[in-house]
Amino acid sequence: MRFLHTMVRVSDLDASLDFYCKTLGLEEVRRIDVEAGRFTLVFLGAPENPDAQVELTWNWDPEPYSGGRNFGHLAYEVENIFESCQRLMDAGVAINRPPRDGHMAFVRSPDGISIELLQKGGRLEPEEPWASMENSGEW
Amino acid sequence: MRFLHTMVRVSDLDASLDFYCKTLGLEEVRRIDVEAGRFTLVFLGAPENPDAQVELTWNWDPEPYSGGRNFGHLAYEVENIFESCQRLMDAGVAINRPPRDGHMAFVRSPDGISIELLQKGGRLEPEEPWASMENSGEW
Repeated sequence: MRFLHTMVRVSDLDASLDFYCKTLGLEEVRRIDVEAGRFTLVFLGAPENPDAQVELTWNWDPEPYSGGRNFGHLAYEVENIFESCQRLMDAGVAINRPPRDGHMAFVRSPDGISIELLQKGGRLEPEEPWASMENSGEW
Repeated sequence: MRFLHTMVRVSDLDASLDFYCKTLGLEEVRRIDVEAGRFTLVFLGAPENPDAQVELTWNWDPEPYSGGRNFGHLAYEVENIFESCQRLMDAGVAINRPPRDGHMAFVRSPDGISIELLQKGGRLEPEEPWASMENSGEW
């Protein structure tokens, strides 16, 4: 038995690829366009374990997507949590739980999927502007 | 960068471990009890890639968990999709999308997390009772 992927629905594929790939650092592994069903599936993997994927489902006829409490978040280990959060902030993403401790941060995808970032190796020495940044919103 | 886990909240830890481990086939990798926060985290991995995990968060003070549309499902490849579905059915789990094609099935966890099962290698020759089993509910 093998874990394959976590599927999330996205309302704007370009905005989601900007978030998950360009900003967060995942890579597109595979894409399937299903003309008859009017949807596109895009599978994204992290460089170090690209076989454990997130599947973006983009329905061409859009609907708004809200969240529920039974799903919590997706978690990724990153090389440098400050650099990841800087890229996210520069792209206009709110750092809901800043990495004050150099260890953990939370942000949300364009469709409200909560993403946990954890520092590889445990933690970095705390530094500004993160060390004194307040929480915002929910995650 | 590395995918670590998908976190889901569970309202009944024993029922969830029965579902995810005893019936579905995941294995408990790590457990953290946080007395001060009154919650328990249990990390589960599939035998073939145990580092890509699902994290069960069990808050000791229960709340009901409902779902949202931005999260879709968790997907696992299984050795024999008919045997997996038989174990699930024997445990009282509804097979919402039976593996009529020997390829794909969907069920739900006790807290409504949709789980996709995919046959390793693609598909098995269709067989009863699955081949003529109707869909039920949503997934």
